[in-house]
Amino acid sequence: MDEILRLTFLYDFYGELLTEKQKLVFEMHYQNDLSLSEIGEELSISRQAVRDQLKRTEKILIGYEEKLRLVERFQQQQRAVLKMKNILDEIGTGEVSRETTEAIVTMKQIADAILS
Amino acid sequence: MDEILRLTFLYDFYGELLTEKQKLVFEMHYQNDLSLSEIGEELSISRQAVRDQLKRTEKILIGYEEKLRLVERFQQQQRAVLKMKNILDEIGTGEVSRETTEAIVTMKQIADAILS
Repeated sequence: MDEILRLTFLYDFYGELLTEKQKLVFEMHYQNDLSLSEIGEELSISRQAVRDQLKRTEKILIGYEEKLRLVERFQQQQRAVLKMKNILDEIGTGEVSRETTEAIVTMKQIADAILS
Repeated sequence: MDEILRLTFLYDFYGELLTEKQKLVFEMHYQNDLSLSEIGEELSISRQAVRDQLKRTEKILIGYEEKLRLVERFQQQQRAVLKMKNILDEIGTGEVSRETTEAIVTMKQIADAILS
């Protein structure tokens, strides 16, 4: 998985276990797209300090996932629901009754909500 | 939700963030059904110390959920998948084609795997 996307997931799951400072720097870089230099200017610290902070934060988040495996568990569920959705997309044509068609639409909506 | 069931969920999700001692006492009580006195005897500590330990561990686990809300998120998904499964149980009778019936069986299996 794309490294930045992965970090975004880790932050989404475990971010609240970080300090306010760690969260701030992480969000400035990964959500607001500020460069390390720009962050350093904002916070009056060196670019190197920002880099070290971010590296440490990433290590902490990866550490949580290594222990808890909750992102992995969550993504397994997402993949399974996606499989169900793909199956739903394939059926529902031809000789299905109106109730069945409606049931399929409802299930697709539920699946979309889970996958969003 | 039943308090012990809830604690079991919290431990399942966040247990790996506890110390070995905290995990041991928790499991002795909630998984092996040992009384506080029995645990105290095993570990050569007072019944009161065991009780304090467990109370502290529960507070820690609840604290993680308050911050991360991952058990809640997971259970929301489970409820949604259960809804899909209930809908699947209702269709698949009458005039559905053989392919559709097989598709429904497959989706039910996926749902069961998610819910297990």
